[in-house]
Amino acid sequence: MKKIAVIIADLFEDSEYTEPAKAFRNAGYKLQHIGLKAGETVKGKKKATPVNIEADFKDVSPGDFDALLIPGGYSPDKLRGEEEAVEFTRRFFESGKPVFAICHAPQILITADVIRGRKITGWKSIIQDIKNAGAEFLDQEVVVDGNLVSSRYPGDLSAFIKASLEKLK
Amino acid sequence: MKKIAVIIADLFEDSEYTEPAKAFRNAGYKLQHIGLKAGETVKGKKKATPVNIEADFKDVSPGDFDALLIPGGYSPDKLRGEEEAVEFTRRFFESGKPVFAICHAPQILITADVIRGRKITGWKSIIQDIKNAGAEFLDQEVVVDGNLVSSRYPGDLSAFIKASLEKLK
Repeated sequence: MKKIAVIIADLFEDSEYTEPAKAFRNAGYKLQHIGLKAGETVKGKKKATPVNIEADFKDVSPGDFDALLIPGGYSPDKLRGEEEAVEFTRRFFESGKPVFAICHAPQILITADVIRGRKITGWKSIIQDIKNAGAEFLDQEVVVDGNLVSSRYPGDLSAFIKASLEKLK
Repeated sequence: MKKIAVIIADLFEDSEYTEPAKAFRNAGYKLQHIGLKAGETVKGKKKATPVNIEADFKDVSPGDFDALLIPGGYSPDKLRGEEEAVEFTRRFFESGKPVFAICHAPQILITADVIRGRKITGWKSIIQDIKNAGAEFLDQEVVVDGNLVSSRYPGDLSAFIKASLEKLK
């Protein structure tokens, strides 16, 4: 069965995890939740979505997965502060396999220094960071550039999920 | 009486507001709290520090104040998404009066595009954003560069407050 890595920490934007997760499972994919501490439970901003962290970054390799989902909210800010999370993200991105990034997710791609020269979108508060990282910011509901699928916020979820499923085919 | 502007929104890092605020008041300064909506009450990450927003950005001008305090946490992310907050910050910074920035506070300085060529510190998650914005990141408890005083996190508060009070003299 094909497997998607989800990298996630506290204060993620609830629907940016729950809706893609549901769609990927319905399409036959298995998810594995990777975070800063295996065994802990992280929660979304609405405190209504507990997610069990199944693996640390040191326990996994990009080769174990077919795609990477990075939900937004303040989860990417927590992840990008830890070198092992940044390193996993960099190696996954460089593998060329699909990366699905929404809202604040580009923050960890910036720390991993992988979006230089790429087309991407994201939440309005990080537009300047995206541009300063050498990427081209596009203000549209979904941007697909090679292996990278990105969207701005929960209002874009339907387009984000559709483009992500298309990329998995 | 000399007056310090505090720009603040929900999910600020509690002590990065409460401790400088106490020190500034003890030193004889008045604070005015500016946010996205006058009359609302914003809360820190610990939910234990309600702050009443006394003015919108449209109600104030940099000329009304002697210094600017920007607490960290996720407050700067919320502020930098709104053009009037960014514009006030840019104009204040360019006035040359003291700016006190801790933790995630450099995020709004990045959106205001005022730190190019400056020496600054901040929270580890935003180091790459600081460098990409053309500033020089220094990993030390406090960095003073002209009008700009910056620190990394709550553990630096004592050095941050001392340097800020010195700059106000």
